[in-house]
Amino acid sequence: MSASAEAQSQKTIDSLEVTTGTFPASEKHYFAGEKFPDIRVPVRDIRLSGGEPSVTVYDTSGVYTDPTATIDIRNGLPKIRAAWIEARGDVEHYAGRQVKPEDNGLRREAAGESRQEIFAHPNLNPLRARGDKAVTQLAYARAGIVTPEMEYIAIRESMGVNSHITPEFVRDEIASGRAIIPSNINHPESEPMIIGRNFLVKINANIGNSAVTSSIAEEVDKMVWAIRWGADTVMDLSTGKHIHDTREWILRNSPVPIGTVPIYQALEKVGGIAEELTWEVFRDTLIEQCEQGVDYFTIHAGVRLPFIPLTQNRVTGIVSRGGSILAKWCMAHHKENFLYTHFEDICALLRRYDVSFSLGDGLRPGSIADANDEAQFAELKTLGELTDVAWRYDCQVMIEGPGHVPMHQIKENMDKQLELCKEAPFYTLGPLTTDIAPGYDHITSGIGAAMIGWFGTAMLCYVTPKEHLGLPDRDDVKTGVITYKIAAHAADLAKGHPGAKLRDDALSKARFEFRWRDQFNLSLDPETAEKFHDQTLPAEGAKVAHFCSMCGPKFCSMKISQEVREFAQGESGVVNQKSGKGTNRDSRFPVPDSAERERGMEEMAEKFRAEGGELYVKQEKVG
Amino acid sequence: MSASAEAQSQKTIDSLEVTTGTFPASEKHYFAGEKFPDIRVPVRDIRLSGGEPSVTVYDTSGVYTDPTATIDIRNGLPKIRAAWIEARGDVEHYAGRQVKPEDNGLRREAAGESRQEIFAHPNLNPLRARGDKAVTQLAYARAGIVTPEMEYIAIRESMGVNSHITPEFVRDEIASGRAIIPSNINHPESEPMIIGRNFLVKINANIGNSAVTSSIAEEVDKMVWAIRWGADTVMDLSTGKHIHDTREWILRNSPVPIGTVPIYQALEKVGGIAEELTWEVFRDTLIEQCEQGVDYFTIHAGVRLPFIPLTQNRVTGIVSRGGSILAKWCMAHHKENFLYTHFEDICALLRRYDVSFSLGDGLRPGSIADANDEAQFAELKTLGELTDVAWRYDCQVMIEGPGHVPMHQIKENMDKQLELCKEAPFYTLGPLTTDIAPGYDHITSGIGAAMIGWFGTAMLCYVTPKEHLGLPDRDDVKTGVITYKIAAHAADLAKGHPGAKLRDDALSKARFEFRWRDQFNLSLDPETAEKFHDQTLPAEGAKVAHFCSMCGPKFCSMKISQEVREFAQGESGVVNQKSGKGTNRDSRFPVPDSAERERGMEEMAEKFRAEGGELYVKQEKVG
Repeated sequence: MSASAEAQSQKTIDSLEVTTGTFPASEKHYFAGEKFPDIRVPVRDIRLSGGEPSVTVYDTSGVYTDPTATIDIRNGLPKIRAAWIEARGDVEHYAGRQVKPEDNGLRREAAGESRQEIFAHPNLNPLRARGDKAVTQLAYARAGIVTPEMEYIAIRESMGVNSHITPEFVRDEIASGRAIIPSNINHPESEPMIIGRNFLVKINANIGNSAVTSSIAEEVDKMVWAIRWGADTVMDLSTGKHIHDTREWILRNSPVPIGTVPIYQALEKVGGIAEELTWEVFRDTLIEQCEQGVDYFTIHAGVRLPFIPLTQNRVTGIVSRGGSILAKWCMAHHKENFLYTHFEDICALLRRYDVSFSLGDGLRPGSIADANDEAQFAELKTLGELTDVAWRYDCQVMIEGPGHVPMHQIKENMDKQLELCKEAPFYTLGPLTTDIAPGYDHITSGIGAAMIGWFGTAMLCYVTPKEHLGLPDRDDVKTGVITYKIAAHAADLAKGHPGAKLRDDALSKARFEFRWRDQFNLSLDPETAEKFHDQTLPAEGAKVAHFCSMCGPKFCSMKISQEVREFAQGESGVVNQKSGKGTNRDSRFPVPDSAERERGMEEMAEKFRAEGGELYVKQEKVG
Repeated sequence: MSASAEAQSQKTIDSLEVTTGTFPASEKHYFAGEKFPDIRVPVRDIRLSGGEPSVTVYDTSGVYTDPTATIDIRNGLPKIRAAWIEARGDVEHYAGRQVKPEDNGLRREAAGESRQEIFAHPNLNPLRARGDKAVTQLAYARAGIVTPEMEYIAIRESMGVNSHITPEFVRDEIASGRAIIPSNINHPESEPMIIGRNFLVKINANIGNSAVTSSIAEEVDKMVWAIRWGADTVMDLSTGKHIHDTREWILRNSPVPIGTVPIYQALEKVGGIAEELTWEVFRDTLIEQCEQGVDYFTIHAGVRLPFIPLTQNRVTGIVSRGGSILAKWCMAHHKENFLYTHFEDICALLRRYDVSFSLGDGLRPGSIADANDEAQFAELKTLGELTDVAWRYDCQVMIEGPGHVPMHQIKENMDKQLELCKEAPFYTLGPLTTDIAPGYDHITSGIGAAMIGWFGTAMLCYVTPKEHLGLPDRDDVKTGVITYKIAAHAADLAKGHPGAKLRDDALSKARFEFRWRDQFNLSLDPETAEKFHDQTLPAEGAKVAHFCSMCGPKFCSMKISQEVREFAQGESGVVNQKSGKGTNRDSRFPVPDSAERERGMEEMAEKFRAEGGELYVKQEKVG
């Protein structure tokens, strides 16, 4: 088994090529700030034919889609936030922690094992807050300060449309705790983004190697691939060897915030034996990751000892990895979860780097049968209490949510979360709305994700087709991201986010006017749309045809509908002139049961036949 | 273009092989009736390991998954309902209509064109009602008669679970118009099924050739393939040549009800020129299809002349093919839709064969921008009025619905439909919840379908990944069907259909107990689930392993969770015995801040370490 897994993992950093290049008919474009004129907020403009205005869309892909950029993953990305962070005057460089063999899961004596691929320019002098200051966006927002990050986000969320999302609005949402900007001061490469229910719904993609598969090179490639298709944040959930070095490569090359679950690495450091975890090992791991630049940590501080027996009669027990590790530790020591007892220590640390909390739902349901049970809601209540503690320390907080929940029980999750966690952003995994479709859990969960996004969840953690079965490969990552972009966008439409509907309308108009290329280019996945079209009508000529393979030329409803419209537009006025009657709100057409009307209709019909025998749409708009 | 399409279509009936054979670890099993002991209601039993009881699931696949059956598509299926129909004593055989060249889209003079593949045993002496009697399930239900079809359905819907779905319950739902049993007396091969919101949510798969692609053989293959994966009905939407013969092959080999849109064939008969359609051509087409055995007809009688101008300012006009054909006819003649003016004539015909109405939504929205507009709801109101007319004739009726609707506007569709159409079953296409993902519209629409199914839609018309781009191939049909089975099942769970949750629970239990094979076998698509698992852990040994490739052996939450549970089960009682305290509803564990308690915990911890150092799950359950 491990032999064949090894065989898959021969790709190394040297042979690595990440995917770059623009999307078809797209131009990367940057908006400048007003308050901060040097900020450059990326958007993608999709050019259309037929004289239609181009459509501006949110762009998570970083410089990888900028043809003017030099991409070299050995050097990492430009540190766009470095000057902003320094300018605040509240941070200091210091000699960071030394990398230890166990950070990469290597034996302490390094007997025959060594680090494989070391990023050449590690951040040896990381930043931290001076003294015990909070250098978090929440602290600034509460102090009334609009940061460059906040203006950046206001521009980014508005996507070129005039909207209520001003820098001051962003500051206010952050100050209230309703939104967070994950932005470790040691990850200056990140392009600011916001997670909160009064903004665009965001999606997260999980990547990461495991003990049985994949290499550093593959994980960096997956990160770049995931953001190309629209991932707003990426979680590195690596659990095998080389965790530290994998993360370094990912962080230095990631324009999106990176999240982790530090307990995974801590567990590797104690040889995988949960009972041997200690606060000291965990704290050292937090410092290691704070210095590297991780933007948010999943912390399972709500898996309290008294809640563990509540999972006893569940169908699927504890399905969160972190939750089960901590449950085992609690049971082995018969002590309260050390993440809970040390929660204030964690706050005191995270505020010095602006690492956001993602309070983990270690007791989330792993099946329809276990949804919304006592264990789940007992933990949620605790997470609400911890939110208050974190806020006291000016730490930014979001709350993780389920999991597996049937449709009729989804809303209760959102309502309880808003109430118990005082509107801190919700970040859910799915939820999956049925358990019977392994291999298709991007779909079972995409349904629940769209719904809970509409109800108010701020970020949706993707689920790939491999969920429950294996680790996602590149294709799975793409499918997962696109499915979740659909869910998030459907939620944005339902919530009425300013500008979200423009893309739908432009694509639908292109569809109705047979501008096939525009339809492909406006879609979430232009390549697939074009490929599918070409499977039945491959000729280039078919892309300007006024029909497609579904109906053929005679049956095309869009074509017939255009003919009808052209005639009706010219004609309804005539009817009204002739009779002065027959017009009401429901109909500009005469009612069909009057003799005078019948004669009028005869004339109209003749006119339609005369003009409309071949009333095909005009050609000039096509191209 | 047509050259390459031709090349794809070389598959002929002679070379055709439909997919047969059972699903893994599954047995086809038949229940007998009580009132009608000769009825044989198929179900699929999925055998499990580890002493778990087998799980019974609804089975749409017909004899194609029965290893004891002889399959020969040249002869067609056994006519299981023939005796039931004859026994009612209200039908007569008669010399049916002759097949004309134009029925197959051939020129009247047959100049060089001929029928390609003729089914060898056509039904030359079809059945019809004696006199003008109604031989519909609605007529029987209203007369208080429980038919064999009704008992069949009661057994089928209950899936071996004791439920409120008795034959009398079925009769009552039919009598009220809340449900229909599509069951043309000339399609005796069909296995009775019911469409109504107090039953399992059903799904329909569309197949059919078009003017530019595919052959008869491919369409028969697609029908068998669609029902294998769970399609409850199939619509044959063919629009090219050989429409009559394609339909004959499909009907004679289909155990599920077949629906059509007769206006498509009528249009072919008049050379594709909508203006030349007449009531006479349409009526002749209805008779042709009634005699062949089509179970339900989409009739776009609600596309009224006065509503057409309401579509004028839409982004995507009229997107229903049938709707646009009729709109063009109305405009050309300036007359009211002949399906509307002849609606009672249609009722008088359909009641003699028990063909159900599927009242078409010709004015459904084709984009998010056009959802829930005046045109759409004006038509829906008309469909409600026509429902009353059809019911007067004892005709069974369902109502078609949208289309493209953002999530926040979905419920309004269901509410209005229930009110305006007096609870006649709703049958929706999706709805798609965003327009921006061509290539993934099975997902954009699966979200809307699950939601509207929960709200009360009785049947969901699938959408495949090729929607808007091309005709679905075999893989697309499978993806579409499975996506819609997910949506329908998620809706069944949310509605609390008796027995629906059993499969979820069995699969989740298998997952928790590492019974990998059971997990695959219980899934909607066992092959894909196993294939995905094997991509990272291909060895057979991995299928009994107590971990998978996601986490590897050390990190498996399920494994750790089982260890925790085993310990907790043994242990919580001990704590309680020792102290007599520390027990409350939220926790059977001691609170952690008492000195006495601390001592007890030390003991517990030692016990866990002693017992649990390697507390792995027991092996005997695996297999």
